[in-house]
Amino acid sequence: MQNKVEPRILQGFSELLPSDQLAYNAMYDKIRSVYERFGFLPIDTPVLEYSDVLLAKAGGETEKQIYRFNKGDTDIAMRFDLTVPLARYVAMHQNDLAFPFKRYHMAKVYRGERPQKGRYREFCQCDIDIIGSDTLDLIYDAEIPAVIYNVFKELDIGKFTIRINNRRVLGGFFDALGLSDKVTDVMRVIDKLEKIGVDAVKQELSKLGIDEAVIEKIISFIGICGSCDEMIASLRAIGCDNEKFCAGVDELDAVVGYIRDFGVPDDYFTLDLTIARGLDYYTGTVYETKIDNAPEFGSVCSGGRYDDLTGYYTDQKLPGIGISIGLTRLFAQLKEYGMIKDDRKSVIDVLVIPMDKTAIPSAIEAARSFRDAGVPTDVYYLEKGMKPKMKYANRIGVPYVAIIGESEMAENKVALRNMLGDGQQTVSITDAINIIKNTEDSV
Amino acid sequence: MQNKVEPRILQGFSELLPSDQLAYNAMYDKIRSVYERFGFLPIDTPVLEYSDVLLAKAGGETEKQIYRFNKGDTDIAMRFDLTVPLARYVAMHQNDLAFPFKRYHMAKVYRGERPQKGRYREFCQCDIDIIGSDTLDLIYDAEIPAVIYNVFKELDIGKFTIRINNRRVLGGFFDALGLSDKVTDVMRVIDKLEKIGVDAVKQELSKLGIDEAVIEKIISFIGICGSCDEMIASLRAIGCDNEKFCAGVDELDAVVGYIRDFGVPDDYFTLDLTIARGLDYYTGTVYETKIDNAPEFGSVCSGGRYDDLTGYYTDQKLPGIGISIGLTRLFAQLKEYGMIKDDRKSVIDVLVIPMDKTAIPSAIEAARSFRDAGVPTDVYYLEKGMKPKMKYANRIGVPYVAIIGESEMAENKVALRNMLGDGQQTVSITDAINIIKNTEDSV
Repeated sequence: MQNKVEPRILQGFSELLPSDQLAYNAMYDKIRSVYERFGFLPIDTPVLEYSDVLLAKAGGETEKQIYRFNKGDTDIAMRFDLTVPLARYVAMHQNDLAFPFKRYHMAKVYRGERPQKGRYREFCQCDIDIIGSDTLDLIYDAEIPAVIYNVFKELDIGKFTIRINNRRVLGGFFDALGLSDKVTDVMRVIDKLEKIGVDAVKQELSKLGIDEAVIEKIISFIGICGSCDEMIASLRAIGCDNEKFCAGVDELDAVVGYIRDFGVPDDYFTLDLTIARGLDYYTGTVYETKIDNAPEFGSVCSGGRYDDLTGYYTDQKLPGIGISIGLTRLFAQLKEYGMIKDDRKSVIDVLVIPMDKTAIPSAIEAARSFRDAGVPTDVYYLEKGMKPKMKYANRIGVPYVAIIGESEMAENKVALRNMLGDGQQTVSITDAINIIKNTEDSV
Repeated sequence: MQNKVEPRILQGFSELLPSDQLAYNAMYDKIRSVYERFGFLPIDTPVLEYSDVLLAKAGGETEKQIYRFNKGDTDIAMRFDLTVPLARYVAMHQNDLAFPFKRYHMAKVYRGERPQKGRYREFCQCDIDIIGSDTLDLIYDAEIPAVIYNVFKELDIGKFTIRINNRRVLGGFFDALGLSDKVTDVMRVIDKLEKIGVDAVKQELSKLGIDEAVIEKIISFIGICGSCDEMIASLRAIGCDNEKFCAGVDELDAVVGYIRDFGVPDDYFTLDLTIARGLDYYTGTVYETKIDNAPEFGSVCSGGRYDDLTGYYTDQKLPGIGISIGLTRLFAQLKEYGMIKDDRKSVIDVLVIPMDKTAIPSAIEAARSFRDAGVPTDVYYLEKGMKPKMKYANRIGVPYVAIIGESEMAENKVALRNMLGDGQQTVSITDAINIIKNTEDSV
């Protein structure tokens, strides 16, 4: 007797049972279809890269979390996001790409983080980015929220709000307050507002050596609220004539107009001056997205505009804009909150059940007709009684069974039973296909 | 000026340009849709696993090729196939799965092989397996070729032939020749027949210490050919009464009958006694698949039946049957031979071009209508002349452009141009949608 190895998976990693995997894949496919509908092209890159390539820009936390190892003489790392591989890809293939280059990339990334709730060491990111050559039109700053809107409408997980800000508005305002040398730190603190509250933010700003009077100005500034038009008006009325600030407000104003052109309803997006995004990478419009009824999920889709994607690899200036959806985390959250709607257990729409062995060839033929008509189908071959056969059908959650016995064979029909309780009828295969397909459409 | 890192990827790894990625994804989706149509459920497992779990069974070559490293105290390895993770998954989740368990898994695996043509260190496998509890009906041995048939018909890459054998036929015959202690070695040698030729096979068999007379019997045995029915008749007429051999022939006979029930035409499959598959893992029916006009591709889809999937993890006996398509390699071969048909460069079906800035809101609105109708659409926003705009449209390979200028805006229409040369017509958005969708269907 050989020794058994205990079957187990690494801490911080996860896998799904088939029914959940089906629901997860359905979400993946919906996101992908919206990305493609907006003209984003697919790419995929290797999971392993040269460490110096992946870490060209990184440092600090990223470097600590990365999976990195040697194979022979080669210093190898696993990708920890999809942005660095995009930069490397664009830098390498620049001459073969048409700009603006719109790409989507939906794939797993790896971070050796301390395992904790909501943190995964392997997770799927669904990214889109639009990369311009030298310049990138401001309209794309509105197209991105249009994509977010269409994705989350398609996912159908409840009302959501896209929150929009512009780093130039913040930066320009802080410059005007004489905080030019502290802008990055101030933004980092403000970004934590929702998490730590206004008092803690004041404290942290104070620790940066900022006067109380100035802190009050910052707090009252980021507290500006109202409809998009009201906020733009308030920002214009604030009396700040810093050039960057004014340019940022003009951008916000234009972006709001374009978002409406894209057909995003006003109650699905809002301006929010507290959105700063931690990364100093962003230079213009920034986004976060919250599910209205589940703010505890945090932002389910974030991103923004940046000036220079490939600076670590080439001299060519390639500005871009992009967002990311962390699908592994979002799916886990939806599952935990019972918010997964597309929770069908079965990949098939009909299970063909031969009454006994003699009916097997007819069952195989019926299955072939179903499949040829595009109906996912399986056949139950085990020689068991009707009870275990129906028990299996129930267990796999199939919506229909098509039973074939002597009389059905004689008539070239099937006894079609709706497993959700609508009784049973003896029909031709063609009729069975129509019944099954119509149910599908109405779901 | 910061130092630049040269953008490059690791040897033995590959990535595609977007147009190729589109064609690759189309193949991936077709394979997936056939797998689902036959009722296979999706799973995915972590790319990283505990080394002792992944290597429970491995040894020799596998162990040398694996990517393995330590992170903290943990000995981690990257999956090198999808079968071992399946065994681990089934062993772990047995109580949550319904048997027979049909699963597909289409994902990347990693092997640190010496880089050479046709060998990849990262490649996508498209696997299906059917796992029974204690037993697994012989009909599945016929369902697998039915799946292969439907997959390759769908891929539309030319006539192919599924070659089928049964290890019990070979093993029983060799037992009868008194070679019971050498069966694995003999099979390994025979499996190389096509590669090294009959003389080299004879030499290698001789090196195993087999008499010349016996070698001649082996060679003449594996040379048996003809239609499936002729070959079954020849095997029955051979006068070998070894029990395993006879059981194997009965299995082959029954499987051929069922394959016909599944609707696979006779010229798409054949019996071939030279197919042995190197792995001693297989215990019954085995498969290889060749493209008739490209035999140099080797087998594009292989697999077989095995007695015990999870022996290294549990005592429960779980027999199974499965096949694998190496999509990364197949795609590269098809590309090299110019056999990729679905070679459209563009993810979008129409590019909306506003004549000038004033037409942009109308262009955005038109794009929205196209997208809402399910037509993948993009808008060209850059303020350039008509010539560079059309040049861009040509470059991205979009089939239609919809131009919007002053007169189109006034009429609420678009000037729809077929980029393949069918001229231009001014039509309503609704008509444009119909024209584009009809073209799509007829492709």
